[in-house]
Amino acid sequence: MREIYVNGQYLSEENAKVSVFDRGFLFADGIYEVTSVLDGRLIDFDGHFERLERSMAAIEMKLDIKKEALLEMHRQLLVRNSLNEGLIYLQVTRGAAERDFAFPPVNTKKTIVAFTQEKSLIKSKDAKRGLKIITLEDMRWGMCDVKTVQLLYPSLAKMQAKSQGADDAWLMRDGLITEGTSNNAYIVTNEGVIVTRDLSPQILSGITRKAVLQCAKDLQIKIEERAFTPEEAANAKEAFVTSATTFVMPVIEIDGKAIGKGEPGPIAKKLREIYIEESLKSAI
Amino acid sequence: MREIYVNGQYLSEENAKVSVFDRGFLFADGIYEVTSVLDGRLIDFDGHFERLERSMAAIEMKLDIKKEALLEMHRQLLVRNSLNEGLIYLQVTRGAAERDFAFPPVNTKKTIVAFTQEKSLIKSKDAKRGLKIITLEDMRWGMCDVKTVQLLYPSLAKMQAKSQGADDAWLMRDGLITEGTSNNAYIVTNEGVIVTRDLSPQILSGITRKAVLQCAKDLQIKIEERAFTPEEAANAKEAFVTSATTFVMPVIEIDGKAIGKGEPGPIAKKLREIYIEESLKSAI
Repeated sequence: MREIYVNGQYLSEENAKVSVFDRGFLFADGIYEVTSVLDGRLIDFDGHFERLERSMAAIEMKLDIKKEALLEMHRQLLVRNSLNEGLIYLQVTRGAAERDFAFPPVNTKKTIVAFTQEKSLIKSKDAKRGLKIITLEDMRWGMCDVKTVQLLYPSLAKMQAKSQGADDAWLMRDGLITEGTSNNAYIVTNEGVIVTRDLSPQILSGITRKAVLQCAKDLQIKIEERAFTPEEAANAKEAFVTSATTFVMPVIEIDGKAIGKGEPGPIAKKLREIYIEESLKSAI
Repeated sequence: MREIYVNGQYLSEENAKVSVFDRGFLFADGIYEVTSVLDGRLIDFDGHFERLERSMAAIEMKLDIKKEALLEMHRQLLVRNSLNEGLIYLQVTRGAAERDFAFPPVNTKKTIVAFTQEKSLIKSKDAKRGLKIITLEDMRWGMCDVKTVQLLYPSLAKMQAKSQGADDAWLMRDGLITEGTSNNAYIVTNEGVIVTRDLSPQILSGITRKAVLQCAKDLQIKIEERAFTPEEAANAKEAFVTSATTFVMPVIEIDGKAIGKGEPGPIAKKLREIYIEESLKSAI
C-alpha cells in the first residue's frame, strides 16, 4: 500500500484527504512540482525547490516548511514506498479556509501533499517510438511561468490529442508554439540549430529545459531561444520535448506530417542519453 | 455545527474531506455553482442547474446525479443548517483517480460537494455604500463561459483591488472590460442606456445577468450588449455589477474616479429592488 504525505503525516491512500475548504480544491490556489526518481534518488531537487518558492512568491504565498524538511520528506516517501524509479509529486496550497475570493489570513497553515508514482522512465517505450503531436490553440491563463494546478486546459488538450490518434499537443498563441501540455517544445532546424521558445510568462521555465540546454551547449550545438511556427516545426529535421519525467522525448510527427525521417532523431537521442547520464551522476 | 454534503453524506466540517487524488484538487478539473437563498428558499435553482450541465458538457463531464436529487440535497442543506439567508455552494469534479493529464475512465464517480454560507444578502452594507473598482488586465484562460474552479486569477485580482483600497476589480482584455472577478459588469450611459458585455467565451453567462436584463426590459430601459472601455465606464452616469449573491450592486468609483455623483445610482437601486422582489416571488 502506497503511503501519502499529507500535512506532516504519512497516510494510506484511503485516508489521504484534504478539507473540502482547501483553497487548492475551491480556487486552484496551489503550486506543484514533480521530481523524478532514478535509482532510488532524486533528480535536481534543488531546481524544483527553487521553482516552487518562485511560483509561490508569484502568487503571494510563502512556504512555511524548510528545504531540509522537504528533502527529508521526499526521502521518507522513497523509503516508505520502496520507490526506485518514477516520481514524487508535491503540491502546496494556501490552506483550508472559509470560501472567499480574498486570501485567508497569512498565518493560515498551508496544505502540503506529496505522493510517489512508480514509472519506468529510462526504458520508456515512447522514447523509442517517438511522439505524435497535434497543435492546438493555447487557451491557458497569462501566467504560465507559475506552476499552478490550473491544469484543466492541458488536460483537455491531451484528450483532444488522444482522440485524434496522437500522443500530445503543442499549444499555440498568436500562431506561435508556446510549449506542450506538460513539457517544453523544441525543434532542430536543417542547419542543426536547436530552437525553443524563450522564457516568458507564456511558458514554464522547465528544470529539465535548463539542464538539457546545458547538455546541448556542452555538445557545442547552437541554440536559439525564440518563438517558432507550426510550419517551421513541420519542416524541421527533428523535434522533441523535455520534462522532469519524460527527460528528452523525440517527436516524430506534427499534425499528421512526419518530422525528418519520421523516427527519433540523433540529436534528441544523444541529448536524452547524456541527460540521463548526468542526472544519475548528480542525483541525491 | 455546519453540515457539509460530500458524495451522498452529510458530514461535520472537520470530516468534510476529499481525496488528495481528486481531480478538483490536482487539476482544477471541476465545475461549481452558487445558488443564493432568501427566506429559506432557493433563487433560480433551474438556471443554476442548467448552467452546471452546460459547463460540465463543455469539459466533457456528465452529471451522474438527477436534478431532483440535487434539489433535494440543496433543501436538506437548508434544513440541516437552518439557513434562512445566504448561499449554497456546489462543486462537481471528475472524481478521484491516479494522477494523469488524461481523463480517468468515464465511469469514475464524480465528486459532489456542497455547503451553505450564511450571509446577509438583502441588507447589504456594500449595496448601500456602493463599490470601488479598479481595472486590471484579464489574465484568465480562454473559456470564461465555463464555470470552472480555476479561480486563482480572480482571487489575485480581488487582493490587488483590496491592496489599493478598492473593493473589487473589473478585468480588461484588449482594452475592453470583460467582467468583474466574480460578477458581470454594467454601465449606464448619459443617455440612460445599460451597456454590458455581450455573451462569448470571454465572460460568464450570469444567471443573475439574465434575470436583471429582463427586469430592465420590463422597465423599458434600453440595453446594449457590447464591449466598453474603462474610459467609457469612467464617464458613465452609473455603473453596477450583478451576481447570484450580490444581486445588483452599485459601483461608485472606477480607478479612483467617481462615477456620476459618486453614490449608488437610481437605475442600479431600482433594478436591485425589483430583482429581489421577483426573486422572492419565484424562489422555491
